[in-house]
Amino acid sequence: MSDLLETALNPRTVAIIGASENIHKIGGRPIYYMQKGGFQGTIYPINPSREEVQGLKSYASLAQLPEVPELVLIVVAGDKAVEAVEDCAARGVKSVVVMASGFGETGPEGRATQQRMTDAGRAAGMRIYGPNTHGLANFGTGAIAGFSTMFIERPPQDGPVAVLSQSGGMSAMVYGLLRERGIGVRHVHATGNEADVTVAEMAWAIAHDPEIKLMLLYLENIANPEILARTAAYARTRDLPIIAVKAGRTAGGQQAASTHTGSMANEERVVDAFFKKHGIWRVRDPHAQALCAQAYLKGWRPTGNRLVVISNSGASCVMGADAAEENGLELSILSASTQKAVATSLPGFATTTNPIDITAALLSNSNLFSEVLPAVAQDPSADMFFINIPVAGAGYDVEAFARDTAKFEALTGKPVAVAAWQDTVAKPFIAAGVPTFANEAQAVGVLGQLAAHTALMNESFEPWHDLQAVHVPEGAGAYCSEAQTLKLLASHGIPIVKHQLCQTAAEVREAFVAVGGPVVLKACSAEVPHKSEFGLVALGVQSADVAATIFESQRKKLTEMKVSHEGIIVAAMSRGRHECMVGARFDPVFGPVVMIGAGGKYVEALKDYAVLLPPFNLDQVESALRGLRMAPLLDGVRGDAPMDVKAFAQVAVSVGRLMMAAGPSIASLDLNPVMVGAVGEGAVVVDALLERDLQCKNG
Amino acid sequence: MSDLLETALNPRTVAIIGASENIHKIGGRPIYYMQKGGFQGTIYPINPSREEVQGLKSYASLAQLPEVPELVLIVVAGDKAVEAVEDCAARGVKSVVVMASGFGETGPEGRATQQRMTDAGRAAGMRIYGPNTHGLANFGTGAIAGFSTMFIERPPQDGPVAVLSQSGGMSAMVYGLLRERGIGVRHVHATGNEADVTVAEMAWAIAHDPEIKLMLLYLENIANPEILARTAAYARTRDLPIIAVKAGRTAGGQQAASTHTGSMANEERVVDAFFKKHGIWRVRDPHAQALCAQAYLKGWRPTGNRLVVISNSGASCVMGADAAEENGLELSILSASTQKAVATSLPGFATTTNPIDITAALLSNSNLFSEVLPAVAQDPSADMFFINIPVAGAGYDVEAFARDTAKFEALTGKPVAVAAWQDTVAKPFIAAGVPTFANEAQAVGVLGQLAAHTALMNESFEPWHDLQAVHVPEGAGAYCSEAQTLKLLASHGIPIVKHQLCQTAAEVREAFVAVGGPVVLKACSAEVPHKSEFGLVALGVQSADVAATIFESQRKKLTEMKVSHEGIIVAAMSRGRHECMVGARFDPVFGPVVMIGAGGKYVEALKDYAVLLPPFNLDQVESALRGLRMAPLLDGVRGDAPMDVKAFAQVAVSVGRLMMAAGPSIASLDLNPVMVGAVGEGAVVVDALLERDLQCKNG
Repeated sequence: MSDLLETALNPRTVAIIGASENIHKIGGRPIYYMQKGGFQGTIYPINPSREEVQGLKSYASLAQLPEVPELVLIVVAGDKAVEAVEDCAARGVKSVVVMASGFGETGPEGRATQQRMTDAGRAAGMRIYGPNTHGLANFGTGAIAGFSTMFIERPPQDGPVAVLSQSGGMSAMVYGLLRERGIGVRHVHATGNEADVTVAEMAWAIAHDPEIKLMLLYLENIANPEILARTAAYARTRDLPIIAVKAGRTAGGQQAASTHTGSMANEERVVDAFFKKHGIWRVRDPHAQALCAQAYLKGWRPTGNRLVVISNSGASCVMGADAAEENGLELSILSASTQKAVATSLPGFATTTNPIDITAALLSNSNLFSEVLPAVAQDPSADMFFINIPVAGAGYDVEAFARDTAKFEALTGKPVAVAAWQDTVAKPFIAAGVPTFANEAQAVGVLGQLAAHTALMNESFEPWHDLQAVHVPEGAGAYCSEAQTLKLLASHGIPIVKHQLCQTAAEVREAFVAVGGPVVLKACSAEVPHKSEFGLVALGVQSADVAATIFESQRKKLTEMKVSHEGIIVAAMSRGRHECMVGARFDPVFGPVVMIGAGGKYVEALKDYAVLLPPFNLDQVESALRGLRMAPLLDGVRGDAPMDVKAFAQVAVSVGRLMMAAGPSIASLDLNPVMVGAVGEGAVVVDALLERDLQCKNG
Repeated sequence: MSDLLETALNPRTVAIIGASENIHKIGGRPIYYMQKGGFQGTIYPINPSREEVQGLKSYASLAQLPEVPELVLIVVAGDKAVEAVEDCAARGVKSVVVMASGFGETGPEGRATQQRMTDAGRAAGMRIYGPNTHGLANFGTGAIAGFSTMFIERPPQDGPVAVLSQSGGMSAMVYGLLRERGIGVRHVHATGNEADVTVAEMAWAIAHDPEIKLMLLYLENIANPEILARTAAYARTRDLPIIAVKAGRTAGGQQAASTHTGSMANEERVVDAFFKKHGIWRVRDPHAQALCAQAYLKGWRPTGNRLVVISNSGASCVMGADAAEENGLELSILSASTQKAVATSLPGFATTTNPIDITAALLSNSNLFSEVLPAVAQDPSADMFFINIPVAGAGYDVEAFARDTAKFEALTGKPVAVAAWQDTVAKPFIAAGVPTFANEAQAVGVLGQLAAHTALMNESFEPWHDLQAVHVPEGAGAYCSEAQTLKLLASHGIPIVKHQLCQTAAEVREAFVAVGGPVVLKACSAEVPHKSEFGLVALGVQSADVAATIFESQRKKLTEMKVSHEGIIVAAMSRGRHECMVGARFDPVFGPVVMIGAGGKYVEALKDYAVLLPPFNLDQVESALRGLRMAPLLDGVRGDAPMDVKAFAQVAVSVGRLMMAAGPSIASLDLNPVMVGAVGEGAVVVDALLERDLQCKNG
């Protein structure tokens, strides 16, 4: 575990400022939990009005302790909490947990007070957890510096799971849901307002605990993605899956998050791209985290997505097949020998193809189950199994089904999930240690997640080398002109439309011939980034004469608008191809962000684009494109030839490299449209706009 | 209840062919259930090898019964089942339930056997339930002609819910899930292969049972939509909500359905449109049906979609807000007086805007809950309430919370849903009769469903009158020519592009002037429906000279292709407008189906269209458009003026009327593109293709 957080996660001495005799008070709970949880270090209750707290000697103040404690829990509120932080900092305490609420989450005044605490801690090299937190709990050592009621409701048991959360309530709930399923949990830590220590920092520390096999995060914002990215990269090297909830997915949720933990909103699509890039699986809520934990802890990492569905209900076969397709799984095609073996066991009217319908005949013959399972266990086409038992009970030997399924699971070594709709049916399966769910949506959902997450964790992450330096043309305004932007793109190897920047009608006539008609005429001015809105774009100009006339009228318009310009661009028309786009921007939290998708005027309105965080490779661009609504067009429909996806992907990769090299000096870059031809015809940038970051001068 | 099915749902005499002494055998269960369930009629076991079955006199055959039974359960299998059906038909039995499997679901041979049964029944006016069914169960009368194990697992209690299902397993499971929640169920009927009686017919009969307040359907296909539509219309008149599962949503699921109940696939989007049109709410599975039942049975029919979220966890407030937005609900804006009242109760750092975060201070003061609830109960901005208690237990007065919530529910009279993540917290709420869910996704999901379903049930359904007769031009081939199609559209009041059909170059020159350049030239031949694929469309023709040249080349091409034609169409170019489309086809099951959405070449690939079943009105077209991805364009983006949605909607309504009047004589009709201008500019059909039904001659 990282030294940095060692004194908080594994302290030798813990003091509680505001210690209470009442174990149901916030100041009483941690003492109760630590004494009960076998904490081997020293506990120092601080409460000036008592001699003793929960059987321990109580002290009047921090100053009176026989030593400087490594960790101090601050349970007092408001100004007293700030004073306590300052006191701890002054005395050389290494870590404090501030449980009181009423700081950064309440508004500007609270934020200022919180900042004072943070400053005091930072100046002294002391780390702060919270404020507004339920605290920390390490069930490996019994250092339970938290007050959650849940540790009474669901008694702890050390185990392979770590729960890290901005919200105390959610940390407790995930813990509770896991314990309800009998899963052991070692770490349950909440960071609250994250005045100092973040979930990402804790994740980095705890990823180094070798006994942790599954890490669950609850986030309301992502404050330091670079630490989380580093953690995820390390976690992949040791096969530690990370499953995250990021709440505040909607405008309403983000508003609520700002009043909960004072979180700033992240853009949702960027958050998704971030998680995907780093192999972190995102689920909607803590229930989904708890639901999948057992399957991950089995160590199952399926190498394919072919599912076998087995049920004693035909309708469950239908719904299982629906669920498979909805979760990105295929129904495996059973081998002839497997089908024959299945057919030998089942009645003539049963289905021996996948899904396998054992039918209600199971009521008459409980052995059907034990006969069918071994028959499919070794089928090479199967990557995972789903057994759906919607109805059983009196007349069915459910205990035997559960035993048979556990044997089957051991036999195949592949993931097996059971859906048992009735508690009475579920119980023996749970007792047999088989991952058991309430319905097929949950069971098949978890199997699909396991397959997709494993594939994501196994994706290669190649760093980019030899980035070419970017020289953003200098200028007073926010934008570069189109000619400047196209030139910059070309200098980075990005194919741009054939064009000439013309100053005179004669040059326009020459350009018409050189470029080849029909052409487009576009005024080139850094002061008019959205030129079509001012009638400064003429499409499909068929002759040099017309081009010359339009040149004059665009020049006149520019003069009327009183803007500087660099001339008029005469560019080739690109026809008969697909309009795509590559956009990019520098996100203040995540850095360079690249968008790829359908181009045209309505990119923002129609939102058919994917977000990629560099570095990424050609395959990742193509895979992202295949997730878009425009995906069918890639392969050609209605007689079209397939698109030159590789050429387009290369543009996206080049833009990503350019943005990485540019850093914050480029605020945004829009290539729209990028005309993409048929395979072999390439892709060409027709229009482009670069927005400088005016705060950033790197020329 | 309908007379037709009376003898099955409420029989006076029931015989069981294949009666068994063993109550766990299919032939034993119904006798056991009926005797236990207080059935007041007469039961006749038929089993030639026994004197007595379960204490009742056993008969050797149907012929030996003292009377002809109204209902006969046929438990024997294969050919014996067919013989039994024929025997029943011959003896004047009114209804039979065939439980055996191995008929229509197994393939062509089974289908033929099943058809023999059906024919025998039809010829005698006898109704058949099944084959391949768990049977029928009426807990109102004790007529339990089914064998499901679930009736032992979860003892029956008569109540306000009816469950009708193609699948026996699903009928039992929905029953079980409802009973688990303490909800009474009267009808549990499964129709299996539906050789004769369908779920729709049973729904019609049971909708007339005045004590039924909620109807739940499980379908694998929709065989007779007209009966279901009639049932839904009647159900709306008596405020009887219908909630349907239609499994086989995916290709894999449909394949599985065909081997389960022998169901034919329905097109999913049409199924959705059908349910929506008739105010039937569709959910993904039986769990979702059971989950929402209590809220419906409370009689809650919210008139708005504004939600108040209350929690003792800030994270739950965030996730509640997320869930609200994801389920189409708004967070209501609390009145100043409500906020003030809430603020009086809560600590200073708590949030008094919606979501209301009571905070962990609830641990110190259990009264916070009882103080906050009455403060918001009467807020006029609230249409419904969601209370999320993710963590409570030792130290919390959960019993009081539950009592307070029940009081609050009575006080507001508006929908209230609770999410209690721990069983121990959920129990007192369930005992208090408050709809209680495991998490906010479920709770808010049900509230959102209730609001949306209520709105759907309240939609007006105006029939169309005075349909204008449609005269599809006669012809030998499948298609009408474009000129014919445009003429037909115009004769039904649909605005079409200005055009002239020309036979000579001179006529083309005249047309160029009359129509106004630039123009489009299109060869007009019923034999070449997809003319652009043959280079027979020229866009943007700028002069009469060029038009005349193109005319000659298109004529030449037609001659080369050796196809008949009606001339060349010279049509106005429609520019600067949005390309939309209206498509229509005659579905063999659902009749006329209209598609509206984004137009162009890639309608099928990009799938941005909605399906409407006529009759529908302008508002319903607009509402469907607003559900599309193109919706932002309707109001104008990037400086565009808002679109003339009403004009486009009028085209859609006119096409719907035309299709209704045409019936099966028009196989399909595609208006693509329909160019839609800015508000006031109207919509105009630029290209259209009509496909005749060659089987149908109505001229």
